[in-house]
Amino acid sequence: MKKESIFTLHNRASDCRARRGEVKTGHGVVQTPVFMPVGTQGTVKAITPENLQEMSAGIILGNTYHLYIRPGHELIERFGGLHKFMNWKGAILTDSGGFQIFSLKELAKITEEGAAFRSHLDGAKLFLSPEDAVEVQQALGSDIMMCLDTCIPFPATEQETIESTNLTTRWAKRCRKAHTRREQLLFGIVQGGMFPELRKKHAEELIDIGFDGYAIGGLSVGEDKELMREMVEATTPHLPEDYPRYLMGVGTPSDLVEGVRRGVDMFDCVMPTRNARNGTLFTSTGRVVIKNARHRDDQGPLDESCSCYTCRNYSRGYLHHLFKSREILSYHLNTIHNLHYYLHLMETIRAAIERDDFAQFRQDFYSKLESE
Amino acid sequence: MKKESIFTLHNRASDCRARRGEVKTGHGVVQTPVFMPVGTQGTVKAITPENLQEMSAGIILGNTYHLYIRPGHELIERFGGLHKFMNWKGAILTDSGGFQIFSLKELAKITEEGAAFRSHLDGAKLFLSPEDAVEVQQALGSDIMMCLDTCIPFPATEQETIESTNLTTRWAKRCRKAHTRREQLLFGIVQGGMFPELRKKHAEELIDIGFDGYAIGGLSVGEDKELMREMVEATTPHLPEDYPRYLMGVGTPSDLVEGVRRGVDMFDCVMPTRNARNGTLFTSTGRVVIKNARHRDDQGPLDESCSCYTCRNYSRGYLHHLFKSREILSYHLNTIHNLHYYLHLMETIRAAIERDDFAQFRQDFYSKLESE
Ligand SMILES: [Zn+2]
Ligand SMILES: [Zn+2]
Repeated sequence: MKKESIFTLHNRASDCRARRGEVKTGHGVVQTPVFMPVGTQGTVKAITPENLQEMSAGIILGNTYHLYIRPGHELIERFGGLHKFMNWKGAILTDSGGFQIFSLKELAKITEEGAAFRSHLDGAKLFLSPEDAVEVQQALGSDIMMCLDTCIPFPATEQETIESTNLTTRWAKRCRKAHTRREQLLFGIVQGGMFPELRKKHAEELIDIGFDGYAIGGLSVGEDKELMREMVEATTPHLPEDYPRYLMGVGTPSDLVEGVRRGVDMFDCVMPTRNARNGTLFTSTGRVVIKNARHRDDQGPLDESCSCYTCRNYSRGYLHHLFKSREILSYHLNTIHNLHYYLHLMETIRAAIERDDFAQFRQDFYSKLESE
Repeated sequence: MKKESIFTLHNRASDCRARRGEVKTGHGVVQTPVFMPVGTQGTVKAITPENLQEMSAGIILGNTYHLYIRPGHELIERFGGLHKFMNWKGAILTDSGGFQIFSLKELAKITEEGAAFRSHLDGAKLFLSPEDAVEVQQALGSDIMMCLDTCIPFPATEQETIESTNLTTRWAKRCRKAHTRREQLLFGIVQGGMFPELRKKHAEELIDIGFDGYAIGGLSVGEDKELMREMVEATTPHLPEDYPRYLMGVGTPSDLVEGVRRGVDMFDCVMPTRNARNGTLFTSTGRVVIKNARHRDDQGPLDESCSCYTCRNYSRGYLHHLFKSREILSYHLNTIHNLHYYLHLMETIRAAIERDDFAQFRQDFYSKLESE
């Protein structure tokens, strides 16, 4: 059953868990640590696939729940899969849909069999079993699929967490069994809430089942940053060295730095794209709120040290004007910059690990931020 | 006072007034007949300057009223002018602001001196004289500026039309006098409402003053298409052959064909960009309403005969999905296609005039449209 690992480890930091590697996918080799821009509805909001290529994005994330609801996985399969449908030549990881379904709250009900829920678009009654989650993702043609998992509310008691995590294990087994298109990879998701012992136990259970990679789920759900980082630390040591590790839905630039430090290879988050549309821009010296009046007359670029299309061609004053005028170009230019910032950060991190210089990189990263 | 014409006439159709020429501007030579995409607030909505270059746009239109209100012409001048502010290397024509001010209706009051109005953004009391209109446009650095003119309501009596047109003449003289930066061109605007004799008389008055080009204003204000075309026909024969002619705010693809046939060189209209955002797309066989369910499962391109980025890379089904999902990429891809359609139409028209084949082109154009 077990096939060759798709992960190659290139370098390991000598003084922390940071690692430099690559993941082989059906659409290219992805250099890790990597950040995956989020493309919820078959597009990374406000930019084109060419814009993503220009910023050297190798892999993006699609949301199974949204694509299942609209336009539907059967339609996307008829169009030749999600890559062809959206004209994206790089790799795609899809989530299982579970997280979005759980976010529907009163519209969702969990049983042993799966998740019953109502569409947020038209209220239609729908049901997603672990087998369905794999089938839908196989139809989408994702390079990396995720098991359907349960989401544990925060805070939760140890007993609630145990029950929910056990259900995730039973679902993981069913996903593994439903996984027929083996050229599409399937990752298990480690739960265990805020209990280190449960995290360790759950990691071991998933490794027993055997997946192509392992994700850390159930974090960034309302706990403070310190607790989140502790839980990552309580998980990665129990994951096999020769498989990729993915911290789901995280996070800020410093969350990425701290995740890498604790041995994480893959990240995704809506933050750079969503913040771009809200006018909050990440720069090497901290966040810039572009609507603030002090940018109105500023002829300098958003970030002196950024080489993105936006910073090469436009001033802060112009970006301020576009944002105040609610021009679509504002969302476009801001998104290009924010994603470039995230992807360039990961590139810098990869180079630092190669030089075994991650600690120094990390110190510089924080000292620049503090200078604001 | 009178300087060398900036217009070179290359070809004239033998069987209609269509003509092929070029206009020399401070930012490149513009091939005519030409369509100018509208960039109201310092951006052609939903696309970048590079997108415009890719579709061979040589000149765009900016709206003086909007830029005057926000961010202000002084700020744009400090940034080095509108070209630099918005990163556009081609030519820019700006309107005078008059049309937008008159559209404010109860917020605007016209006197001999100029137009008093209130900002649609914050209600601030503002005033624009003919001299101000030129000063603002000079500060913006437009390659082609327009005189401040009055807008005649439709319908209007002959007496109302005479009075309004006479005021436009007096304002035109004041604009001409205020025009100090002669490397920026200044066009007069022929009014005269729906009265052919007044159109002729007004054209003669403006030619006496002497401008770099002549626009036909006060059309597409509610009159039917036949009347609009008659008024164009009543004006162009009275305009000098060696000066460019610009039909303001017009129109549909067939309006462009009919305008060219009557001797017009330049056009602008929000239609291709606005319709793009509303999901109405122009194709060689007619209009496509992309939200219609029949496009949902259509894997073919929007327009088989279109070579734009959108048609080369995306299906109707995907464009339908993006529009239904209100994704920003929908506005972007639709705008690229619609503007490409307009610009390609003008390219085809120019080639037809060069071959002295405009009548045949026109017949083919309509027969394809009717085939839908
Ligand atoms: Zn940048
Ligand atoms: Zn097209």
